[in-house]
Amino acid sequence: MSAEIICVGTELLLGNIVNTNAAYLAERLAYLGIPCYYQSVVGDNEERLMHLVKIALQRSELVILSGGLGPTEDDLTKETAAKALGLKLVEDSVSKEHIIQFFKIRNKTIAENNWKQALIPEGSIALENENGTAPGIIIEQDGRTLILLPGPPNELLPMFQNQVEPYLLKKRKASIYSQMVKLCGIGESDVEEAIRDLTGSTNPTVATYAKTSEVHIRVTAFSETEEQARKLVKPVVNQLKARFGSMIYTTEPEVSLEQAVVELLAKNNMKVTCAESCTGGMVAARLINVPGASAVLHESFVTYSNKAKRTYLDVKKGTLKKFGAVSEETAKEMARGGCINTKADACIALTGIAGPDGGTEEKPVGLVYIGCSVAGKTEVRECRFSGNRAKIRESACTAALNMLRTCILEYLSETKFT
Amino acid sequence: MSAEIICVGTELLLGNIVNTNAAYLAERLAYLGIPCYYQSVVGDNEERLMHLVKIALQRSELVILSGGLGPTEDDLTKETAAKALGLKLVEDSVSKEHIIQFFKIRNKTIAENNWKQALIPEGSIALENENGTAPGIIIEQDGRTLILLPGPPNELLPMFQNQVEPYLLKKRKASIYSQMVKLCGIGESDVEEAIRDLTGSTNPTVATYAKTSEVHIRVTAFSETEEQARKLVKPVVNQLKARFGSMIYTTEPEVSLEQAVVELLAKNNMKVTCAESCTGGMVAARLINVPGASAVLHESFVTYSNKAKRTYLDVKKGTLKKFGAVSEETAKEMARGGCINTKADACIALTGIAGPDGGTEEKPVGLVYIGCSVAGKTEVRECRFSGNRAKIRESACTAALNMLRTCILEYLSETKFT
Repeated sequence: MSAEIICVGTELLLGNIVNTNAAYLAERLAYLGIPCYYQSVVGDNEERLMHLVKIALQRSELVILSGGLGPTEDDLTKETAAKALGLKLVEDSVSKEHIIQFFKIRNKTIAENNWKQALIPEGSIALENENGTAPGIIIEQDGRTLILLPGPPNELLPMFQNQVEPYLLKKRKASIYSQMVKLCGIGESDVEEAIRDLTGSTNPTVATYAKTSEVHIRVTAFSETEEQARKLVKPVVNQLKARFGSMIYTTEPEVSLEQAVVELLAKNNMKVTCAESCTGGMVAARLINVPGASAVLHESFVTYSNKAKRTYLDVKKGTLKKFGAVSEETAKEMARGGCINTKADACIALTGIAGPDGGTEEKPVGLVYIGCSVAGKTEVRECRFSGNRAKIRESACTAALNMLRTCILEYLSETKFT
Repeated sequence: MSAEIICVGTELLLGNIVNTNAAYLAERLAYLGIPCYYQSVVGDNEERLMHLVKIALQRSELVILSGGLGPTEDDLTKETAAKALGLKLVEDSVSKEHIIQFFKIRNKTIAENNWKQALIPEGSIALENENGTAPGIIIEQDGRTLILLPGPPNELLPMFQNQVEPYLLKKRKASIYSQMVKLCGIGESDVEEAIRDLTGSTNPTVATYAKTSEVHIRVTAFSETEEQARKLVKPVVNQLKARFGSMIYTTEPEVSLEQAVVELLAKNNMKVTCAESCTGGMVAARLINVPGASAVLHESFVTYSNKAKRTYLDVKKGTLKKFGAVSEETAKEMARGGCINTKADACIALTGIAGPDGGTEEKPVGLVYIGCSVAGKTEVRECRFSGNRAKIRESACTAALNMLRTCILEYLSETKFT
């Protein structure tokens, strides 16, 4: 079974929005082991949409369309798909009831054009829309499957994951199991080199994804039952754990680096303070984006000026004078001072040159010192990042979160054995 | 002339990366007034790429391909396009010299496969690649134009803007002039309502773009000379200025809201401090992303706990007890305290409930108080944002930056007349 994706919407065609639906659907199809050879975008235009649907039905067994299922006259994906397959539209009573309930809960009256959304091609399957009124639709005809999904990502994503994926797996008579191993502190090419012997495997498959300053490895297996698939995945994940050790910050697909850090702090009842110069609050902001961060972070400082570094972190005047604000010594005093002054268990401090100006031959743009103090012990790392100002700051932020994580792990392993 | 876009790359087809090139090219084509009816994505596969190119040449006069111009065997966009048009590949001496220089500057040796990149279809135009080795290519044949661009966005973007756009404009015998009017503090539908009489115009065109908590309006005119086009744009931009006043933070396409704020502060020799609870450093981080922010921001606080609000901002214990941390009164004291304690001219303070937990009927998730103190005068706004935790925080951050901007403008206009 090979697939293709058609995204319908004038706002995509005008470049007003980026096509994240196509990327999401493509990634999930790859995950499901279904090859996808084409993606297309077309506007809300019947003639051109019909042209694309006809081409797609000739070359792909599975055609996934997104967008154009709404209540307006512009929305004509369903009508066009039905016409291409010679199907009439009939009212679906479950979808109609869903629309009634959707408006009732929100205390809104139903505009007449909404009833259009209760119509589905005869013989097709309606998919419930958790976050909207337009149902998704699955049509099977002559060995071809057409799947129609709503355009808004918050409607499309849960519908695909909760209803379309199980449908496709059942069709393939397969169960799937997958684990995501997320690493930080190592580059993509080094990861690929270290797992070259594993990536040739077809079941389970081992795929790497380069994210900003992170590498994710997905291990996916198919089998008749999920239990059997899980048995295929487990030894490979164990191999990865043995090879990468503490570079792995999670094996949960939904857990971010900052969430792993917050959970590690919370589990060990530790509090952290950030003392940021070049990142200017980004590290604290990422930590605080994790629900429940209030248990582990009470306060943080943006100390952009030398004076602020002295006032809030007790960096010595002489240190700043002798070594400069961007130096190992300053980073060390920032981290130590942040810890002491806020009575935190840990402090992560950053000072660097984010550019575009301010660099010298000795201290070029991209040079960042990250200080990390945990339970009285302070380490500093010198990092050199590339890219523009935003990229350098983002890389520094991720490196700092990871350094905080590894320093805490180190501290925990030392206290455990002494 | 109607256009279509074909993006070539397995990483797009697998959903490993989002197709930002297609969005960029689509937006620029819309800007140039060239209708684009189709976008496609295909992998590095000769047969399927050939199939798409042939379809595209049948239905569009301008076909833009991106990706697959690199030195490896997988890269076959150029070869396939040449084959589709029956053209031989010939060496382009300028491109060859560029490759030699590119490696020389970087002190690297040239791998044999790089010479492949100096080949272009006979009779075509090579486009210089500022940031890479693969030249872009323009092929004209029988009234059809095929444009081949490298896949990496940092190579594609400047090549399109600096070389392809002038080429296409010359072909159309047109000059273009455009201004971007950026607004904050008003919703897209209100903007559209207010400019309904202007959006019907075909020259200049007036198009709105909804960004996160912002609306951008682009006014674009075509004429024989840029000067004439400019004359068409100017009265419309003046209309927009008259209608939206201080909601407009810039008319420069490259200027962000935070940059406008930093420039406003710098111009008036003012210093700002941020005092953030729910946003946890995001406002300071956005300001510090502007080069030169060190002139206007010396320090900032993340005061997530009540104790931190008291320690660094002198929020009264009684205020926190009586009104709670998320209240107008607390926001006011945070802003005032932040100003006084750091001797800043302005302080922007945020306290709110970002969720997913912590909301009550009286104080629901999404409730955020933003306090802004400028030269001794403090205002507070109550905002209600929707979406998940990240969305609420992002909306609050933008609203805070805009409130800071408008409060400073208010202060300046008051001092000017007194």
